[in-house]
Amino acid sequence: MAEISLRKARMIIRGILAKGREMELKPLSVVVLDTGGHVKAFEREDGAAPGRFAIAQGKAYGSVMLGMAGKAQMARAEQQAYFMAAVNGAYGGQVIPVPGGVLVKDKRGNIVGAVGVTGDTSDNDAEAAVAGITAAGLEAEA
Amino acid sequence: MAEISLRKARMIIRGILAKGREMELKPLSVVVLDTGGHVKAFEREDGAAPGRFAIAQGKAYGSVMLGMAGKAQMARAEQQAYFMAAVNGAYGGQVIPVPGGVLVKDKRGNIVGAVGVTGDTSDNDAEAAVAGITAAGLEAEA
Amino acid sequence: MAEISLRKARMIIRGILAKGREMELKPLSVVVLDTGGHVKAFEREDGAAPGRFAIAQGKAYGSVMLGMAGKAQMARAEQQAYFMAAVNGAYGGQVIPVPGGVLVKDKRGNIVGAVGVTGDTSDNDAEAAVAGITAAGLEAEA
Amino acid sequence: MAEISLRKARMIIRGILAKGREMELKPLSVVVLDTGGHVKAFEREDGAAPGRFAIAQGKAYGSVMLGMAGKAQMARAEQQAYFMAAVNGAYGGQVIPVPGGVLVKDKRGNIVGAVGVTGDTSDNDAEAAVAGITAAGLEAEA
Repeated sequence: MAEISLRKARMIIRGILAKGREMELKPLSVVVLDTGGHVKAFEREDGAAPGRFAIAQGKAYGSVMLGMAGKAQMARAEQQAYFMAAVNGAYGGQVIPVPGGVLVKDKRGNIVGAVGVTGDTSDNDAEAAVAGITAAGLEAEA
Repeated sequence: MAEISLRKARMIIRGILAKGREMELKPLSVVVLDTGGHVKAFEREDGAAPGRFAIAQGKAYGSVMLGMAGKAQMARAEQQAYFMAAVNGAYGGQVIPVPGGVLVKDKRGNIVGAVGVTGDTSDNDAEAAVAGITAAGLEAEA
Repeated sequence: MAEISLRKARMIIRGILAKGREMELKPLSVVVLDTGGHVKAFEREDGAAPGRFAIAQGKAYGSVMLGMAGKAQMARAEQQAYFMAAVNGAYGGQVIPVPGGVLVKDKRGNIVGAVGVTGDTSDNDAEAAVAGITAAGLEAEA
Repeated sequence: MAEISLRKARMIIRGILAKGREMELKPLSVVVLDTGGHVKAFEREDGAAPGRFAIAQGKAYGSVMLGMAGKAQMARAEQQAYFMAAVNGAYGGQVIPVPGGVLVKDKRGNIVGAVGVTGDTSDNDAEAAVAGITAAGLEAEA
């Protein structure tokens, strides 16, 4: 599997939203990007703020474009804020370097896409992301 | 219903994709925007080109921001190309003024969002959009 | 009077909206810019599409920045579309070169600002603009 | 009330400007945005600097797009400067994360828009905003 299918993308989103309800999180927004950083699927729950698409996308976009998930990006931003700022310049301001951006891999470890979740705390966003990806039979790197 | 719900947005997307298969169209990409032009849901079928999100969004965005669906935008562009070009400048280049951008209204005629469909001919995109919106129990203005 | 006052800007907007209701136009959006092209006041009537601020501003902005009202801009665009496109490049895409952009002058003929009206046909937008500016005791160049 | 009306927007602006005069603040600029972040009404008092529209809008825009008022945005910026910088990249540089951006809610707690006030200290801007929103019979979250 070189590229995530729409069927899998839907499974991931439904799994994440189900996990969010189970954890009693605030309304979530979830994007699934392909290996080129392009949107495959997105859903924003009722009650979520209108601007959440850009935040979800920014978490996933940086993950897939750098091959580095949100937690690693945040660590780098804490150490070298100017580096992540410069990355954002190069990427047109599309990167949100915090947890909730999660790489999606197949069973052989190949990256097949990335997920971005936003709406609750960054750590809760990431936890829900991992649960949904795992439930869809894929591997998550948060 | 002042704002389209995620449940309705999903129904619209599924209806449009079903219609696309029935019409034997090329793989479609479908976005549902809220009344402020913000993404509520999106799906891109397997086999569709990676850049289709922006085209779908551009069709729907102009529709909701101007309160004028794709066919009316195209007519205006045919008459006054410089006007639609100028509108696009004002909207940051986000408008695609062709059929496939469709306003979604409730039974009382209030706009509750907009749909953008891309992948086949613009007219086929618009036909599938109308079918999906109607199947979800809402009114379409193409 | 070198610069339009907020009191006069309010009078202009109220006069235009009153004229719009008298003419039975669609819901209007009206901006008043100062002599530097900066927003002094704006109102969008209930039922107008959400993106109307940018259209109103674009009509007024080109008027004041070029010292040329909407009708003259449109004539130029009809003759030399590439010229108005180039102007828009220079002005960051902020110009909408159609009627409804109207210069506001004091009794001695000095420009004190510009008005942008959008919502109905461009000609009706311009007619309402002139009526409101005149009712506020100022001169209009449409 | 799903969306703020022009009548309410005017009441809010007048209330804020009245409060500003009562507090003897510097000239204020006040924007009211709808739930999609689009301008509903704006006024800039005589004597205010020309660029105040963008500052007022930036305070209100971030509030409504993130569903998080100016004080909460400032707290986040103090803790994680790179996060708010990244959010701003995703939102095209339109966010001003300081007090004076205030969410407007109806009596049931639904967000119906946002207000941005600028001209004096951020805290004074926010105090005037809350006073004007409350005087218009709505709820404020600063």
